[in-house]
Amino acid sequence: MEESSRATAIRQLQDAKRSSGKSYNQIAEETGLTNVYVAQLLRRQAHLKPETVPKLRSALPQLTDDHIQEMMRPPMRSYDPRLIQEPSIYRLNEAVMHFGESIKEIINEEFGDGIMSAIDFYCSVDKVKGVDGKDRVVITFDGKYLPYTEQKVEHMASRRPSQES
Amino acid sequence: MEESSRATAIRQLQDAKRSSGKSYNQIAEETGLTNVYVAQLLRRQAHLKPETVPKLRSALPQLTDDHIQEMMRPPMRSYDPRLIQEPSIYRLNEAVMHFGESIKEIINEEFGDGIMSAIDFYCSVDKVKGVDGKDRVVITFDGKYLPYTEQKVEHMASRRPSQES
Amino acid sequence: MEESSRATAIRQLQDAKRSSGKSYNQIAEETGLTNVYVAQLLRRQAHLKPETVPKLRSALPQLTDDHIQEMMRPPMRSYDPRLIQEPSIYRLNEAVMHFGESIKEIINEEFGDGIMSAIDFYCSVDKVKGVDGKDRVVITFDGKYLPYTEQKVEHMASRRPSQES
Amino acid sequence: MEESSRATAIRQLQDAKRSSGKSYNQIAEETGLTNVYVAQLLRRQAHLKPETVPKLRSALPQLTDDHIQEMMRPPMRSYDPRLIQEPSIYRLNEAVMHFGESIKEIINEEFGDGIMSAIDFYCSVDKVKGVDGKDRVVITFDGKYLPYTEQKVEHMASRRPSQES
Amino acid sequence: MEESSRATAIRQLQDAKRSSGKSYNQIAEETGLTNVYVAQLLRRQAHLKPETVPKLRSALPQLTDDHIQEMMRPPMRSYDPRLIQEPSIYRLNEAVMHFGESIKEIINEEFGDGIMSAIDFYCSVDKVKGVDGKDRVVITFDGKYLPYTEQKVEHMASRRPSQES
Amino acid sequence: MEESSRATAIRQLQDAKRSSGKSYNQIAEETGLTNVYVAQLLRRQAHLKPETVPKLRSALPQLTDDHIQEMMRPPMRSYDPRLIQEPSIYRLNEAVMHFGESIKEIINEEFGDGIMSAIDFYCSVDKVKGVDGKDRVVITFDGKYLPYTEQKVEHMASRRPSQES
Amino acid sequence: MEESSRATAIRQLQDAKRSSGKSYNQIAEETGLTNVYVAQLLRRQAHLKPETVPKLRSALPQLTDDHIQEMMRPPMRSYDPRLIQEPSIYRLNEAVMHFGESIKEIINEEFGDGIMSAIDFYCSVDKVKGVDGKDRVVITFDGKYLPYTEQKVEHMASRRPSQES
Amino acid sequence: MEESSRATAIRQLQDAKRSSGKSYNQIAEETGLTNVYVAQLLRRQAHLKPETVPKLRSALPQLTDDHIQEMMRPPMRSYDPRLIQEPSIYRLNEAVMHFGESIKEIINEEFGDGIMSAIDFYCSVDKVKGVDGKDRVVITFDGKYLPYTEQKVEHMASRRPSQES
Amino acid sequence: MEESSRATAIRQLQDAKRSSGKSYNQIAEETGLTNVYVAQLLRRQAHLKPETVPKLRSALPQLTDDHIQEMMRPPMRSYDPRLIQEPSIYRLNEAVMHFGESIKEIINEEFGDGIMSAIDFYCSVDKVKGVDGKDRVVITFDGKYLPYTEQKVEHMASRRPSQES
Amino acid sequence: MEESSRATAIRQLQDAKRSSGKSYNQIAEETGLTNVYVAQLLRRQAHLKPETVPKLRSALPQLTDDHIQEMMRPPMRSYDPRLIQEPSIYRLNEAVMHFGESIKEIINEEFGDGIMSAIDFYCSVDKVKGVDGKDRVVITFDGKYLPYTEQKVEHMASRRPSQES
Repeated sequence: MEESSRATAIRQLQDAKRSSGKSYNQIAEETGLTNVYVAQLLRRQAHLKPETVPKLRSALPQLTDDHIQEMMRPPMRSYDPRLIQEPSIYRLNEAVMHFGESIKEIINEEFGDGIMSAIDFYCSVDKVKGVDGKDRVVITFDGKYLPYTEQKVEHMASRRPSQES
Repeated sequence: MEESSRATAIRQLQDAKRSSGKSYNQIAEETGLTNVYVAQLLRRQAHLKPETVPKLRSALPQLTDDHIQEMMRPPMRSYDPRLIQEPSIYRLNEAVMHFGESIKEIINEEFGDGIMSAIDFYCSVDKVKGVDGKDRVVITFDGKYLPYTEQKVEHMASRRPSQES
Repeated sequence: MEESSRATAIRQLQDAKRSSGKSYNQIAEETGLTNVYVAQLLRRQAHLKPETVPKLRSALPQLTDDHIQEMMRPPMRSYDPRLIQEPSIYRLNEAVMHFGESIKEIINEEFGDGIMSAIDFYCSVDKVKGVDGKDRVVITFDGKYLPYTEQKVEHMASRRPSQES
Repeated sequence: MEESSRATAIRQLQDAKRSSGKSYNQIAEETGLTNVYVAQLLRRQAHLKPETVPKLRSALPQLTDDHIQEMMRPPMRSYDPRLIQEPSIYRLNEAVMHFGESIKEIINEEFGDGIMSAIDFYCSVDKVKGVDGKDRVVITFDGKYLPYTEQKVEHMASRRPSQES
Repeated sequence: MEESSRATAIRQLQDAKRSSGKSYNQIAEETGLTNVYVAQLLRRQAHLKPETVPKLRSALPQLTDDHIQEMMRPPMRSYDPRLIQEPSIYRLNEAVMHFGESIKEIINEEFGDGIMSAIDFYCSVDKVKGVDGKDRVVITFDGKYLPYTEQKVEHMASRRPSQES
Repeated sequence: MEESSRATAIRQLQDAKRSSGKSYNQIAEETGLTNVYVAQLLRRQAHLKPETVPKLRSALPQLTDDHIQEMMRPPMRSYDPRLIQEPSIYRLNEAVMHFGESIKEIINEEFGDGIMSAIDFYCSVDKVKGVDGKDRVVITFDGKYLPYTEQKVEHMASRRPSQES
Repeated sequence: MEESSRATAIRQLQDAKRSSGKSYNQIAEETGLTNVYVAQLLRRQAHLKPETVPKLRSALPQLTDDHIQEMMRPPMRSYDPRLIQEPSIYRLNEAVMHFGESIKEIINEEFGDGIMSAIDFYCSVDKVKGVDGKDRVVITFDGKYLPYTEQKVEHMASRRPSQES
Repeated sequence: MEESSRATAIRQLQDAKRSSGKSYNQIAEETGLTNVYVAQLLRRQAHLKPETVPKLRSALPQLTDDHIQEMMRPPMRSYDPRLIQEPSIYRLNEAVMHFGESIKEIINEEFGDGIMSAIDFYCSVDKVKGVDGKDRVVITFDGKYLPYTEQKVEHMASRRPSQES
Repeated sequence: MEESSRATAIRQLQDAKRSSGKSYNQIAEETGLTNVYVAQLLRRQAHLKPETVPKLRSALPQLTDDHIQEMMRPPMRSYDPRLIQEPSIYRLNEAVMHFGESIKEIINEEFGDGIMSAIDFYCSVDKVKGVDGKDRVVITFDGKYLPYTEQKVEHMASRRPSQES
Repeated sequence: MEESSRATAIRQLQDAKRSSGKSYNQIAEETGLTNVYVAQLLRRQAHLKPETVPKLRSALPQLTDDHIQEMMRPPMRSYDPRLIQEPSIYRLNEAVMHFGESIKEIINEEFGDGIMSAIDFYCSVDKVKGVDGKDRVVITFDGKYLPYTEQKVEHMASRRPSQES
């Protein structure tokens, strides 16, 4: 139910984009968002902020008030696990899993004991020419560094002071 | 290899604690850390900060320089998937999975489109009396609220300015 | 069939809440229940007790007699396994699995050989300020301590006395 | 590591039993425990209580002080998932999964919205004659009925009174 | 197709029971069947025998000839694997998996090399008072003991006598 | 531990067979057992009966008293799940899964609501010539028909008479 | 789509059989096919050969031209993985997995390095009396022996002769 | 045990090849086998035929009598499921799964209702130049076409003539 | 939604082919494409290039403008994981997994550290006569060799020159 | 075996790095490779090219000839599936799976029907300052764009010209 109403919303958003004849890059240019973020918005994987509504409406006048309303609700983020069959998505997963330990160790060396946030996070897809003059796909993952906190009781605001275990 | 050297380290840390005769709560009291964090330190699931070394040494004089050295390296965090068989751990997982959507929706209502961090995060286990006078286990998860960023190109510091796709 | 009629019930309950314009916290305040429990009731993951009906009706006058009837039947508790993809739910699961052994050992030290019940159990989501003045999500799991029974035959009421194996 | 030291302990306990020449039923008779509980004790799946030590020592004089010490530590409960291949264990699982919904509904009808505890729980295996005079295996699961609590804030002892969300 | 026609049949049988206002225990009393078996019949997990038809009809006059016809066909037995999420069913599964090896060994000691049948099998759910006066759920599994046959060629009736490999 | 001692036993039994120079068929002929059962005995997947000991000893004089002792203990039956990769075993599994529903329906038509036992069960592998004169493998599964019991309370010997739920 | 049209076809074929009032065995007798093969044909798991059409039409006059047309198309063979829950099918799978290695080794001893084909394959279900006079289910798997080829280049017809790697 | 002795055999065979300094292609040339088959032989995934022994010995004089003996035993064929992580093997699997239905339909159109055998089967890896002059990997799968048999009782040699079900 | 509209498209393409009465091979001949590629096009697993439109239209005049439009959109490539149950597809998977390591090693020996591309890739199914005069299925996988790049910073066009980490 | 010798090699390479006291970034600077590639080399997930040997030797003089020899063999690429438990690696996987469809669609719009290669591929981890002055982790995936080939028979070099199916 939920699922199918979500699917309906996504299909309508995609139809709106298709009828606009614009690419994700063009909408990105007009709204000042990354191309990946625009695509996420139109697939209900991101949350539309109020101040961005006017720019998005002007880029995609096909969007109705209902669409905008829907896009402003925090989404339930998910994906079909069979996505991994798609060769272009598998290659990304392959890179992450094969390079994962190396990436983690470099983060530890350069930043400390922490991770790259996937929430305070930017992603874009770019097209560059390689040294051989051929097209290359460049995907940038840019996330805030989050250090692990040391769990000191004095810093734990939620802790009830007098009821020690 | 890595795995077994890690297992050796954990066993030695556990032995050090056992021979001290202290509980996690006692060590927590002496170090100012949460009881869960102490347990994580002694299982190599957390990172020992330099300023905490003296307190930990004084609480657990059995720890050698090698132990301290090891505990100060950022750990590779992991768990045995069969942990979920343990009834006390299964109950926690059951609560998370059955209450998960409700928790998410309340976060959205009270905070906005974001999540509770598991990195800037505190956890403690406490013992309280219920209204029927019986013991109750209280587990507190206290994590920083992380709002999803809107991915504006102008805020994406990593983006190469001139090489648009 | 069952599944879809359940989905229908949940959607109607959610619609009733939405049209009331109230948050889970507001309904919690008016009914004296935890915010998580209210959300569970409206997702058919908890059982509505007779004495709470009047308060819930007054908080959500949109609820029909059929809704109330449905909410008073013991639910079949379940969840979509893909929930774990949702970042806010994954973070909770990550904490449980990575901290699980530590939590178990502290329960053993402080209480004995037993577990935290997930049935005689309370859960709430709260908002506090951290020492840095930033918002933090506090999730409290509060369950009765259940000690493992020693299985003495004389205490096993169900055991047929004379027909020894 | 942990795993193999646990396996060693179990093997030694089994050896002690074997060299005693006694069956689980005989030890159960001498200790006043159920036969299943005795078997669990000797496989480190249950916790030996202090007052039972003398009876167990007298039933199994082969047990050393180290064995007793080990059996008095709260165990990490687990099982090999391939156990389910064993036909005698598969049949039990088959019954639980095929009859599960029916059992749940009868509990709801006769007791209310709650479950059978697997912690305050007794289990025994008995041998009876069927109406055709043939041997039958009778397995009894006897667990305390645990009603789901209604999560009223006033009953939630852990809740910080003044810091409402 | 099959699946949905089966689901329809089950829903109608459940409706018939609901409109009768009787519990599984009451129908069990009137038909001489165990309460679990009655519930299985009404979920198409068991086969209705001709001689039981009159008693069932008199207990549930709402049942039509079509229902009776359907219930007399050998069912395709199955279950939704997500049943295991339901806490009351999980607790049963937990008991079976954690106690499985012990149960098997006791069967071997008391009966020999064989298993408990899940086909020539009885199951009931009962309510008893514990020594503390509290309600307890008692689930009884009672299955015929089946010894493994030794595969002697002279006893293998299907074996073609003259065409040795 | 258990696992490796079992593996050792199996290897020794296989060595005994190899040094005898006999095939499973030859040992089957000498002992009166099916060829599959002999192979199961020598892989600790079947239980050696006392009256068969002399025949097996005479067929395989290499077997020591320890081997015989080990073979007379009820085995923990299991298999490596990766066995299904072996093409000869996969083909069997393929046949069972693809023909399964048809086999079940024919059993229902010809026998009633019941199953083929895998415990009171014989299995043999034979070599025959096909109509084209080529070798064919014939695998025979011959199991007792087990009808599902109707669970009448009066036939349930384990049921406590007076303590109705 | 495909899936549901296939399900429709199967249901219609099953209806045709049901309205004929004949068992699989009766149709097998009339068509000269094995009973399992008849059942496979009516579940679209086998391919109807032209010369068998008249016999099948005469055995099941309810079949329409469309049904016959559909049955003469090579099927996409498949099964619902949850079939394995059905006790009668699980028992077969249990036998295959527990006896698999033994069967493989006997094939190797008696035939050589090869397998039993599941394509040039016959299967039937028979009813015989055991030595105790009780009914037994006999399932016969009869497949052509396929030896592994040695991959000699001179025998590899597809190999391009002059373009060696 | 088995597993590790197999691993030892494979390592020794690989060492023999390495110390010969020959590639699989060179050994293939000298023995008349396909390159893939040579590699399978040296990994114990294929069976060495007696008449090929002299050629293999002359190509790899490092092989001892024990090695030859081992290679002449029918292997237990298997693979590590994590092989699929290797990009070169994943690409093959990707092609098979994405093209599978198309390949099946073409086989049906051109050959009939049957399959390509993986037993009477040849495989080779070749290097060719593409139209752009770049190297290409050509993998050839060449298997006997196996038509599904129609299961006529008169052709089923194993069927006991007089004991109809 | 997406999924079902895709299924509809595929069914219509298949219908168009069926009503043309042509085989994949015939359409391949007329369009100059491989037979597998034609089948992939008609199952929306490949992308129709503009210059091929006229040939495909002339081979399959049943195709409408909408069909052509749809076929010219880059497809989301996927497959039903249960495909592997189909014996003809399983045999291919079996070959890939059992021969995978050998194929990889030969690629390394003959080409270097790289893989066979599954993107710049050709596949065809052919029918040849074996040395025994019997039909054989030949499946050719022909992919560009892709060497792993050495990741030199000077060749990484995307790297921001001045902002070293 | 293979596995453990690989683990040994990796540990020795890591030890060599540790005793050098250099970070991955420093070695990257000295060798002209990306930091991720250096880390991959020292974990045997990449292939050392001959021309890079001198630079690597000078950066890590601890490396022996055996190490260099080992690093110049094409590796068997793999990873432990439990890596995904590590929070820093999970976040990457989360981003790939949640953003995957969007990334694919943008590639299709900007490049056509093709993918980003994971073989002709560069990866680096960089540290930048965000607009809020906080550290950010930037991970760059830079892969060659690979368009799907149209499978024209005339371009398929491997195709045998005269033996049409």
